[in-house]
Amino acid sequence: MENLPKCDANYVPLSPIIFLHRAATAYADRTSIVYGDTRYTWKQTYNRCHRLASALRSLNISKNDVVSVLAPNVPAMYEMHFAVPMAGAVLNPINTLLDAKNVAAILRHSEAKAFFVDHQFIPCARDALKHLGELEYEGLIALGDPMRAHVIVEDEWDPIALNYTSGTTSAPKGVVYSHRGAYLSTLSLLLQWEVHVGPVYLWTLPMFHCNGWTFTWGVAARGGTNVCIRATKPAEIYRATAAHAVTHMCCAPTVLGMIVEALPDERAPLPNTVRVLTGGAPPRPAVVEEMERLGFHVTHAYGMTEATGPALVCEWREGWDRLGSRARAKMKARQGVSVLSLADARVVDPVTFARVPQDGRSVGEIALRGSSVMKGYYKDVEATSKAFKGGWFLTGDVAVVHEDGYIEIKDRAKDVIISGGENISSVEVEVVLCGHAKVVEAAVVAMPHKHWGETPCAFVVVKEEEMMRHCRENMARFMVPKKVVFVEGGLPKTSTGKVRKSELRAIAKSIAREEEEEEAARKKIHEQAVAVSRL
Amino acid sequence: MENLPKCDANYVPLSPIIFLHRAATAYADRTSIVYGDTRYTWKQTYNRCHRLASALRSLNISKNDVVSVLAPNVPAMYEMHFAVPMAGAVLNPINTLLDAKNVAAILRHSEAKAFFVDHQFIPCARDALKHLGELEYEGLIALGDPMRAHVIVEDEWDPIALNYTSGTTSAPKGVVYSHRGAYLSTLSLLLQWEVHVGPVYLWTLPMFHCNGWTFTWGVAARGGTNVCIRATKPAEIYRATAAHAVTHMCCAPTVLGMIVEALPDERAPLPNTVRVLTGGAPPRPAVVEEMERLGFHVTHAYGMTEATGPALVCEWREGWDRLGSRARAKMKARQGVSVLSLADARVVDPVTFARVPQDGRSVGEIALRGSSVMKGYYKDVEATSKAFKGGWFLTGDVAVVHEDGYIEIKDRAKDVIISGGENISSVEVEVVLCGHAKVVEAAVVAMPHKHWGETPCAFVVVKEEEMMRHCRENMARFMVPKKVVFVEGGLPKTSTGKVRKSELRAIAKSIAREEEEEEAARKKIHEQAVAVSRL
Repeated sequence: MENLPKCDANYVPLSPIIFLHRAATAYADRTSIVYGDTRYTWKQTYNRCHRLASALRSLNISKNDVVSVLAPNVPAMYEMHFAVPMAGAVLNPINTLLDAKNVAAILRHSEAKAFFVDHQFIPCARDALKHLGELEYEGLIALGDPMRAHVIVEDEWDPIALNYTSGTTSAPKGVVYSHRGAYLSTLSLLLQWEVHVGPVYLWTLPMFHCNGWTFTWGVAARGGTNVCIRATKPAEIYRATAAHAVTHMCCAPTVLGMIVEALPDERAPLPNTVRVLTGGAPPRPAVVEEMERLGFHVTHAYGMTEATGPALVCEWREGWDRLGSRARAKMKARQGVSVLSLADARVVDPVTFARVPQDGRSVGEIALRGSSVMKGYYKDVEATSKAFKGGWFLTGDVAVVHEDGYIEIKDRAKDVIISGGENISSVEVEVVLCGHAKVVEAAVVAMPHKHWGETPCAFVVVKEEEMMRHCRENMARFMVPKKVVFVEGGLPKTSTGKVRKSELRAIAKSIAREEEEEEAARKKIHEQAVAVSRL
Repeated sequence: MENLPKCDANYVPLSPIIFLHRAATAYADRTSIVYGDTRYTWKQTYNRCHRLASALRSLNISKNDVVSVLAPNVPAMYEMHFAVPMAGAVLNPINTLLDAKNVAAILRHSEAKAFFVDHQFIPCARDALKHLGELEYEGLIALGDPMRAHVIVEDEWDPIALNYTSGTTSAPKGVVYSHRGAYLSTLSLLLQWEVHVGPVYLWTLPMFHCNGWTFTWGVAARGGTNVCIRATKPAEIYRATAAHAVTHMCCAPTVLGMIVEALPDERAPLPNTVRVLTGGAPPRPAVVEEMERLGFHVTHAYGMTEATGPALVCEWREGWDRLGSRARAKMKARQGVSVLSLADARVVDPVTFARVPQDGRSVGEIALRGSSVMKGYYKDVEATSKAFKGGWFLTGDVAVVHEDGYIEIKDRAKDVIISGGENISSVEVEVVLCGHAKVVEAAVVAMPHKHWGETPCAFVVVKEEEMMRHCRENMARFMVPKKVVFVEGGLPKTSTGKVRKSELRAIAKSIAREEEEEEAARKKIHEQAVAVSRL
């Protein structure tokens, strides 16, 4: 049995580049990309990617060099997902919401050898660096040779992409994916979301988010059509969906909110059921319910940059279609079961790594292992070894496992509030707050408390008030926020739309300090008063 | 970028065993197997496989040992697909149609350390070997420890299965699969056939055929239900389909024939559309058409043991639903495009490896490369190196590529008939012969011909005759068989139902020899006659 070595016929390094090659044969004349009046077939996309790869090589881009890009979901951004690795290089798509300072930091840290910028972001890019030379994208494509062989992937462990985290909880880190990880994640997400052959995929999710949760590569694997739009706005979503008979799209829950709240003249009738994969935060049941009513089919996934996007998907279960729409939406808001590219996903005691019971109550941390987990953080050995503890990737998310094996997140580990020995999930309190009709947004953080240790402090964006009564009526007494802060104009957020709890925590701390100082002052006054009375 | 080594968290060897682990969590209480009154959940199947793996280890089965099994599609056969690799061993499922002599040859060649036999095949097994000891299956399961950890796969290149070819064209060869190949093939076939979560899979395809085209592992990956039946008979197929609301089944085209020709009292109404994946030979358009009318949705795949089953799948294309049912059935009879686990599938000149043009006319040999190609032939270095020529696996099948990129097989390389410089596809002649209403079966082989070199010789099973006229009316003159041999009781076949063309070829040769001798005799008589007349 040992006498059967690997050879070129039976061991080909896994890489998403394979999907483009196959699409050029199997789906040659099908539409690969639509963007305004621009339209390509898979054969053309293949040809253009080959040209771009060869042009990059003639610019001396070589193996493991980083190629950065700052662009919205336009065809060039899509093409670079194949062309850059075909040149042997590593793609670094940068979040377009970052300011020049942060873009500069990424360009410096990644040591990018080339930087592609969409015209919309040229001012930001100019501020980010003193540039040395400029080339025009189509000129570069024209310069390339479609017949020149691309760089062959020799080791599937080689890097394919470098994606910086948003830095919700700490400084941005450069997450590196391998060709193997990208290939396997792509297949497993296509399976998990049941993407059929020939999907019409609308790019509402930025491609810079974990390479569009791998669907940049996945649409090629299924011979689908990429519908590109420059801006994710409700009118544009409805229009493109109707015009191209869109079947699939991914987005953050905030986009779901946009869709259900679209104005009448922004809407267009859906041509068919549109499957939506959402993640980043649990979607609100009321929004899911309304989406379904409109003709969208929502699937909820949970993931992170380090897991190449979705790691858990809330797979549909047979019995759920017999539930009421609200109960079903609640089921869907759970994070679900592991994708097939993971070898394991567990909720564990983060010290002993023992699994928590499947009772829907016992909390632990979500731990992942498998081929869709990142290679590590670029130029950060310490953070890498800290992330991979005991043979697992610890997500930092606190969750429970339900009897049916479905995982449900309770909180980020660092957001749990420990009040008088009780663990309070900030998310649970937030869910109750959001259940109030008047609440637009809510965030709950720990506020130091001399007696309870910590106590919840809620930051709420409301149209009107009545919050405390609502809380008292809807949650256990110890969970009721001692403080409700009403925030004007929305909560502070990161570039990917996550609430900056660290900032809120600082505010909560200073409120507590102020109150303590006030009380101390009052006490002092009282003592003085007592002293005075004694006089 | 080189500074990010593999670790247990991000590099887990690929193996289908992962699917069972995941199913035990994600699909714990769903039905895994139904067989008569027997019914298991995924949790139970997981538990039983663990027990069996541990029992095997206590019998001193260890890494790379071969465990053979001779059984129909019963639950034990399914369980062994996980339990044997979980014990670190290699599963060798033996074709149940083989006689004792051939079974003995496989046991000898594979050096099996354990041999599992279903009661139905005990007489055959007894004849095949002088057995040493016997244990009862359920006893073995009971003996096992469900808590004992199974053997961890350390290298995804390790062997998982040993499947002997049917030996249609030569002696049976032992094809070895790796854990990696099995894992990737499973994912890619689930995608290719668009198997949704929770399929109800009817076992009409023997599990000993490429491990049931990987669906043994695939049903676990999707949390489906395995519906096991002991014999693939029409009444049983209809009954099980209706009783369990079967959604998917695989089978050879002969089984399609069985289904459409079932007697009225063998039939039952289908509960839903049943998706059928067929392969082994191109299905006859008339049969596909009738299957669709009955409510089955037929997909055609092409493959071989060496490619872990299906290598090409005739993926549905948008425009086809606008075709007439016969034209559609003809499209479906093509072999199609490569599965996602292959890095490439081409039709090439087998000497230069140059691709043939995509014109539907230029013939070449199908060549494959990728992770779903076998590790090689067990204990046969020569055959292995012959199969892997120039970095490709040469299939021995002659085909064309159509303009749409779809591959269509014309013949086995060795079955092509070269007549007066023309290549005649034996399959094409057979298709015409089968188009005759009276023909039940047809096989065409080369017959030596002193003038043309070779000429087609047809072996036909008919209800009545009229063959030659039919041929002359329906094919080019040079293709018309010079000889039509009517065969009683069917054509000679291998254990997997393939026509033994080598036998027919020998018959054709002897017919030619006989005719030559006859002619020579006649010539002699003529010469004698001439000589006599001269006297």
